[in-house]
Amino acid sequence: MLLTCLLPAVTRAQQSDSLVLRQMADEILRNSTAYENLRVLTKTIGGRLAGSPQMVKAEQWGVKALKAAGADTVYLQECMVPHWVRGEKEEARIVSKLRDFVPPLNILALGNSIGTGKAGVTAPVLEVASFEDLEAKKDQVKGKIVFYNYHFKPEFIKTFYSYGDAVKFRGQGASKAAKYGAVAVIVRSMSHGANNFPHTGAMSYDPAYPKIPAVAIGLQDADRLSDRLKRDNSAKVFLRTTCEMLADVVGHNVIGEIRGNKTPDQYITVGGHLDSWDVCEGAHDDGAGCVQSIEVLRTFKALGIKPARTLRVVLFANEENGTRGAKKYAELAKQRNEKHVLALESDAGGFTPRGFTSTMEPEKKAKMISWKPLLEPYGLYDLEGPGGGTDVGQLHAAIGTPMVELSPDSQRYFDIHHAANDVFEAVNKRELELGAFGMAGLIYLVDLYF
Amino acid sequence: MLLTCLLPAVTRAQQSDSLVLRQMADEILRNSTAYENLRVLTKTIGGRLAGSPQMVKAEQWGVKALKAAGADTVYLQECMVPHWVRGEKEEARIVSKLRDFVPPLNILALGNSIGTGKAGVTAPVLEVASFEDLEAKKDQVKGKIVFYNYHFKPEFIKTFYSYGDAVKFRGQGASKAAKYGAVAVIVRSMSHGANNFPHTGAMSYDPAYPKIPAVAIGLQDADRLSDRLKRDNSAKVFLRTTCEMLADVVGHNVIGEIRGNKTPDQYITVGGHLDSWDVCEGAHDDGAGCVQSIEVLRTFKALGIKPARTLRVVLFANEENGTRGAKKYAELAKQRNEKHVLALESDAGGFTPRGFTSTMEPEKKAKMISWKPLLEPYGLYDLEGPGGGTDVGQLHAAIGTPMVELSPDSQRYFDIHHAANDVFEAVNKRELELGAFGMAGLIYLVDLYF
Repeated sequence: MLLTCLLPAVTRAQQSDSLVLRQMADEILRNSTAYENLRVLTKTIGGRLAGSPQMVKAEQWGVKALKAAGADTVYLQECMVPHWVRGEKEEARIVSKLRDFVPPLNILALGNSIGTGKAGVTAPVLEVASFEDLEAKKDQVKGKIVFYNYHFKPEFIKTFYSYGDAVKFRGQGASKAAKYGAVAVIVRSMSHGANNFPHTGAMSYDPAYPKIPAVAIGLQDADRLSDRLKRDNSAKVFLRTTCEMLADVVGHNVIGEIRGNKTPDQYITVGGHLDSWDVCEGAHDDGAGCVQSIEVLRTFKALGIKPARTLRVVLFANEENGTRGAKKYAELAKQRNEKHVLALESDAGGFTPRGFTSTMEPEKKAKMISWKPLLEPYGLYDLEGPGGGTDVGQLHAAIGTPMVELSPDSQRYFDIHHAANDVFEAVNKRELELGAFGMAGLIYLVDLYF
Repeated sequence: MLLTCLLPAVTRAQQSDSLVLRQMADEILRNSTAYENLRVLTKTIGGRLAGSPQMVKAEQWGVKALKAAGADTVYLQECMVPHWVRGEKEEARIVSKLRDFVPPLNILALGNSIGTGKAGVTAPVLEVASFEDLEAKKDQVKGKIVFYNYHFKPEFIKTFYSYGDAVKFRGQGASKAAKYGAVAVIVRSMSHGANNFPHTGAMSYDPAYPKIPAVAIGLQDADRLSDRLKRDNSAKVFLRTTCEMLADVVGHNVIGEIRGNKTPDQYITVGGHLDSWDVCEGAHDDGAGCVQSIEVLRTFKALGIKPARTLRVVLFANEENGTRGAKKYAELAKQRNEKHVLALESDAGGFTPRGFTSTMEPEKKAKMISWKPLLEPYGLYDLEGPGGGTDVGQLHAAIGTPMVELSPDSQRYFDIHHAANDVFEAVNKRELELGAFGMAGLIYLVDLYF
């Protein structure tokens, strides 16, 4: 009985759906262009931060790739995007009275941060373990560099929970330290990785306090700095960053559509974000989501499956440090009173998919969960979890569209997230393709049953 | 209702079990020595084929690692193992009338194969797509090198099915071709990998036919050879391998135990195989299974969990080209009339675990499946599948012991299987640890409820 219960019988309608899903999987695993598309994006364009020349090249690549996949219509949707530049290679070193050799610290400026200026800054360092610890030591902060040495928790099985737990030090750490007179902050990277890559990412300033420079440090160097401070509490750090925020520039969401066969004025959005951090190839984050979304469209066209609703692939601009693309997309959808049936995003890495996280009305959620017998043979078993993505979240917030995010295996993601090792070689062809299949399959079912 | 059905309520007994499992996961994710053990095994010893000097070093490493993990007793179990040696670096090239430059072919002798002799062999090539194709072309085989160019199927979601489908050409291809007078065989590697590594592995000879040399070829070179034969059907291949089978030598299973707290004369076996192919570090295959098995023991000791049965970690000798270690282990267990409650193996890679495959009586299987609510939070959802492993299969065959194999995500496995890129760097620390957790958790439950 239990066995029957755990493996619910596939209904007659599901039998025919299961054949279509199998066709989709075969098509993708045999003929996908996702991996080759990703190679071109990452290896010929590379990092593509909002406002950079690579952003423009990536938009052109997106148009070309969507046309090649068979989109009926491909167009650009304009939006203003921030233009933050890293400037010269960052420098950092420990200045200590101890005589032993101290190699430079491996750091990266955090996105949106101001720089130290060309001369750099040298100051004593106050290590803190948390914001509570910062409050307890607030009288010691003035004139110092605050070093947030909060460790990424290993106990969470889904590593995005570790990220959610730790990312506040990157996002808010500078202003919280500036409040007490800090001159800069160094933030331990949000990573499990057994390496020393610093992981950048967006920070923001609280307008109530002075802006101070913020940098990320690799795990091994964070341990080294902490150890040094234990042995020499008068040790200082020299930091030099020349990053700066310039005036906004024009960027674009890149959009490709298959016009709906029955109700073309209803939309299913599927997307990833086209921008990435400048210090890496943005292969998992989020080249993978872009090429998977394009692959969904290609698969529908290649198999001659005509969706009832208009299928709209959106390569969102500027997710990393502003979400301006998704905001513009949601704003226009609301303005035009568009009816959106689903918004699906892939922005959690191109690893083997395990399911989807989502936010929608309970009846729809129950329907989605009832598709488990169809999806589990492809490793997509985890359909219950709450969630959604940064980009589709804008549409959800604006007009209540059911939102879903592909949920890949997360163990390797924070080894490479926003770091120099997020490169094409870290993506496995089949894992990427299975993610694209999950997205195509879900959209097929949503188009039939939502 | 459906939701309730899919997420069965955790019973009271399961509530207390779930706390123990959480403790185990925390212990492993915080303090595991598995990754560091794997580094030492792979980086200081490396490939460790049966009969090689590295086999002896690996046995010494195993004894040390089991003692460090806290085993009550550590001992060696002697068995005779085959001693096949690769000899000099293999050579292969296309000999063609076409003038364009033809780089050497990237090949590896298959394990247990005879060599071509120092002079090598040059012969025309007959490409076949299958054994049926070979039969159809049997009159053309004499004096030729048969080239099995069977493609690894991309459609299977679990890649071990692709392997099961294709591996017969490696195992039996030489004798089937020798039957019709072939002088050697070249076998397309069993891999999805987007690279050119040849993948070695065991072959065997049918005593009815002459022994002929057998080699594996990388995917890109297989395509290149096939293309060349289409353009020049008189093209020959020169092959040179100096591998040979020497006399059997003494090897050992390395065994560590925690004595059972209640019924020490009953055993739970957990293991991986200590040998690996010579051309790689044997990190996933099967360094991972060895260090995970040792980690199971370490976790029980570290948490002070005393199993009722004797927990026996076995690092099996010679899985790759003879299975002599597991045969000896099963033979002795039968001879001594030992009662074995479970035999669990990890030999499918150190990737994120998804569940277990198993073979046991239906009542026990149903019990195992009833643990799904306890295991699924750790990503172990797939408990239904049939299976077991090569090593534990010997015990199962000899005395009917329920056998289980850890079932990790399989997408990357055949990119690296038996090839030069099966190295420490291909293993992710957390993925390895989650596999060890799955094994420890299952053993904890089996010891309580089987």
